[in-house]
This record gives sequence, structure tokens and C-alpha cells, in this order.
Amino acid sequence: MENELAQKVLAGDRLSLSRAISKVENRTAGYGDILDILFRHGGNAYRIGITGPPGAGKSTLVDQVTSRALDLGKKVGIVAVDPTSPFSGGALLGDRVRMRNLAAHEGVFIRSMATRGSLGGLATATKDVSILFDAFGMDYIIMETIGVGQVELDIADACDTTVVVVVPESGDSIQAMKAGLMEIADIIVVNKADREGAMQLACELEFISGLRQSASDWRYPIQMTEAIHNKGIDELWSAILSHMEYVRKSGHFETNRKRQIKSRIQELLETKIRSYVEQELLPRTRLDREVERVLRREVSPFQAADEIFKHIQSRTG
Amino acid sequence: MENELAQKVLAGDRLSLSRAISKVENRTAGYGDILDILFRHGGNAYRIGITGPPGAGKSTLVDQVTSRALDLGKKVGIVAVDPTSPFSGGALLGDRVRMRNLAAHEGVFIRSMATRGSLGGLATATKDVSILFDAFGMDYIIMETIGVGQVELDIADACDTTVVVVVPESGDSIQAMKAGLMEIADIIVVNKADREGAMQLACELEFISGLRQSASDWRYPIQMTEAIHNKGIDELWSAILSHMEYVRKSGHFETNRKRQIKSRIQELLETKIRSYVEQELLPRTRLDREVERVLRREVSPFQAADEIFKHIQSRTG
Repeated sequence: MENELAQKVLAGDRLSLSRAISKVENRTAGYGDILDILFRHGGNAYRIGITGPPGAGKSTLVDQVTSRALDLGKKVGIVAVDPTSPFSGGALLGDRVRMRNLAAHEGVFIRSMATRGSLGGLATATKDVSILFDAFGMDYIIMETIGVGQVELDIADACDTTVVVVVPESGDSIQAMKAGLMEIADIIVVNKADREGAMQLACELEFISGLRQSASDWRYPIQMTEAIHNKGIDELWSAILSHMEYVRKSGHFETNRKRQIKSRIQELLETKIRSYVEQELLPRTRLDREVERVLRREVSPFQAADEIFKHIQSRTG
Repeated sequence: MENELAQKVLAGDRLSLSRAISKVENRTAGYGDILDILFRHGGNAYRIGITGPPGAGKSTLVDQVTSRALDLGKKVGIVAVDPTSPFSGGALLGDRVRMRNLAAHEGVFIRSMATRGSLGGLATATKDVSILFDAFGMDYIIMETIGVGQVELDIADACDTTVVVVVPESGDSIQAMKAGLMEIADIIVVNKADREGAMQLACELEFISGLRQSASDWRYPIQMTEAIHNKGIDELWSAILSHMEYVRKSGHFETNRKRQIKSRIQELLETKIRSYVEQELLPRTRLDREVERVLRREVSPFQAADEIFKHIQSRTG
């Protein structure tokens, strides 16, 4: 059954892709098999992260970048991640409106992701969706995030090119910097460039760029855009292609992939080991007993952890 | 030596407290002993979290709440956490200014915490500082956070009462809700209540409060304040005391402590187990070999993790 669904995804069936994404997102039984199979059929998609504060015009930019890719005959998968969306009727509505514009094009598939309970799982689920898009044959996968938290940083880590969008108002530049967004930026977009303060903001970012110590020899370009007027988009698209070329030629592409795979394996391994330790190696009553001792201040949590660890070690020696 | 420092903290020496905090914050050799000793001398401090977006007036509120506690002859430790401060000269300057006002009072000790590299460690370091404050004899520990991220949620989890501050402007209410702040609020403060939209914001929050499904029978009060005019502070202080009474009488205080201790022990244990597995049980070349196989798409990361896990299991069986 699951293999059938995976096969249909590989055959290019959109409805099956949609169903497979839901399975993976909701961790429905059998999702593991789908990921196993589809992972092995991927590897060609290029991942672009587009992140920035709410209201910076990210959705419009994503649309226009997508159009450029479509013009070249490429296929694009979009994951719009909103870790905050349980309450954000507005943002979701925005996505719906947008989806009507692009959804007509068979080269595009858009999926909105939102927290369903666990924040921790959102970045993971997003990366899993990109595995499905990759297997489906997407040339580009665009991950759109609202950004400052760990979820966004995790997602950026899974992207080959990260575009950070800021706007000349409400101290967004400062906010973005604070959040370490500049640290992850490969390209910076100053959107709404017709607004007052845009030039000053670009200059500040230019200045900070000069201060930044970077291991790589890529220095992020700062691209002025007016997304709703379709201005600066060609230049942004060129910047993305330049970075893509740089990433591929410099060997960063392969290095990044290795790092991503390694951290994914480690993450999976840790989850397995954690539950193995909890269920097999550590008597449940032992932890509770230590909690009680700590509560009575007989030992500190540090000593309690030490003792439990020694117990586990003695069982695995 | 370390014990001497710990003893001086217990004896109420402020300079030693300051040195001990630095040791713990920077993970300097010997910090573990200090935490061990001081943890066992704590247990009496009540932890109050005050969180909200930048510019909501948190610092002023913290000052005034602190003054109320001082009026009652209580001692207060303040940890101001700014996960974003590598770039926030402004915010830090604000703290400095404030510190001059309160630092004169010997019943108060203020410490600003900022990221030094790792975001992950910030919540942990903050909780550790509260262990020191507790041992030092603080009656209240106030943790001030800017917030939306995982760091803030982790810190809120370590607090007995969490106050969420919002202001009637720039869609803060929506932002705060989005970020799940409402989920952690025990008390909500609408600060700058003289501004337009304050009443509407309070009503919205009241409405949401009604919708909220909660396991507990505490429903957060919404407190209007004008911190800079010292208005509404007595009512806020009363609300904090009411919640404190509720927490203690309902048994939540002890339940929370147990949960906090348990998760701390688990966290410590996981760190130990992770490095044990990496260094002792898992041949380094094995992980690298699996990464290469995944890179060649021979196996998925999921299968690779499975195989490594089985190997580890066979060594611990």
C-alpha cells in the first residue's frame, strides 16, 4: 500500500504527493517507508530558504522567484512554514489567496505547514516534505519561514541558499540582526525599497557585512526589491543563481549535504537511544526515586544524573 | 577553593555571588561543584517570569514589582535574559541604566544574561543562576525574557508564575498569541494602558482566555498597567500574590518542581549518554561510512540510523 503511494509520487501524481505529505506531516503509520523509498529517488532538487519578519513581503517574493524558475521550465515545490500559525488566520488566508495564483500551474506545488502541537517537530517535518518534493522531481524547493526562532535556523541549515528579507521600517534590520539572521544569510533582500529609509538600511547592512567574519569567501549581496511592483526580482533571481553556482563550484554543496545527513542520522539515533535507555536500561522507578531525593535536596540534579548514568554504564559495560 | 566560594555565597557575600554566577554562566572549571553544593541549600525562592516583546516596558515593570517585594522586606534576584543581545547595544544599555536605580539596594541583585555562542545553553544557564540566587537567600527570582523562542518557553517552564506583557500597538497581541505566549501566561499585563486600543486589546485577550482550554482551574487575570506612571502596579502585585497562593494551595508548586527536576535530570542524562555513545559505543568511522552511503542514496538516513542503532544495541544487550 505505502509502496504504491510512493510509486505514484515517483510517477508524478499530484494527489498522491499531497497524500504522502499529509502522512509524513502527521506521522501516520507507514510514513517511514514512504520516506525511505522516496529519499533514495531524490538528490537533484536545490533548496532555497526565504526568511524574514511577518509583513516583509516574503510571499510575494516567493511567488516572483517561482515565476522566474517556471519561465525556465523548472518545477518548484514551496513549503510555507509558520510556526506561529495556530492563531494566524490572516497569514493562512494570504497563502490561500496566493495559492490560487500559482496553483493553476502544474509546475508548482505549494504546502503550508503549521505547528500541530510540537514546535520541535516542525523543522523535521519540513525537511521531510522536501524529501518528497525532491523525489517528485522538483528542481527547486523553496522553504518560506517567518523568522527568528530555532525552527527557522534549523530549516535554514537544510537549505543550499538562504535569502533573508528585511524592510525599511520598524527596526527590522536590527531585529533581524539580533536574531542572528544575518549569520545565516547568503543573500539579503531589502524589500519595499521605495520606502523611506531603504537606502540607509542597505548601507547599514553593507557595513555589517564588512564586519562579518566568515569562513567562506562568499559575501552576501544586498538586493533592493519592490516585490509588489516586480522591481529588482530579475536581479534577485540572478543573485540566487550566482550563489547556486558558487555553492556547487566551491564544494559547499556536497559539504552541506554531508553535514545535513550526518546531523539527521545523529538526531534519529539520539531519539532511538533515548527511548531505548528509558524503556530498557533505566528502571522507571529509579528516575522517580532520584526526583524525590532531589526534591528533598539530599542530592543535586547533577549528582542524581551522575548516579543514574553510572548505573546505565554498568549495564552496558 | 570552589567550596570556599560556595560557602561565601551562602554567607551572603555579593561579590562571591557575582563570581559564582560568572563561573556557572561560562562553565568555568569547578562550576559543577558550586551548583551541587548550592542547589542543596536552596528551595525557598519563588520564581516569577516576566516576558513580552521588546519595547513593552518589561524592565520598568520588573523594577516596580521588585520595589513592591522590597517594601515587604523581601530579597529579589533578577535575571534579564536577552537571547538576541549580541547586537542589542540599546537593550543592554537600558539594563545598565536600570541597574543604577536598583543596584543601590542591598536586597536586590541583577544579572544580565546574553547568548555567548550557543542559544541552547542560555535557558540552562539562566536556570543555574536561579539556583545560585535561591541559595543566596532570595525570596523572589524574577526572570525577564524577550519573548517568543524556545529559550523563553524553557525559562517559563522553570517559573512558578509567568507574567506575559503586551502593549496596544503594532499587533503585539496577535504576535504574542501566535508565539504561544498566551499558553504559558498565568497573568497578562496590558502595559501602556493609556494608549489607544488598550481596552480593545484587553477585551480580545479576555475573549481568548474564555476560549482557552486549560487543565487547571486558574484563569489568567488581565491587568492594565501604565508602568512608567506607576499605575496598576499594586493590582499586578496582588495578582502575582494571588497566583502564588493558588500555585501553593493547589499543589501545582510541588508538581511543577517535580516536573522541572525530572526534566533537568533527563536533560543531563541525555547529554551524558550522547557523548558516551559517541565516544565509547559508536566507532567514529561507522557514522562517516553511513553518511557516505546515504549521500550515494544507497540507504535513507532512517535506515542508516536503524542500522547504527542495532549495532549499539548488540553491544549493550
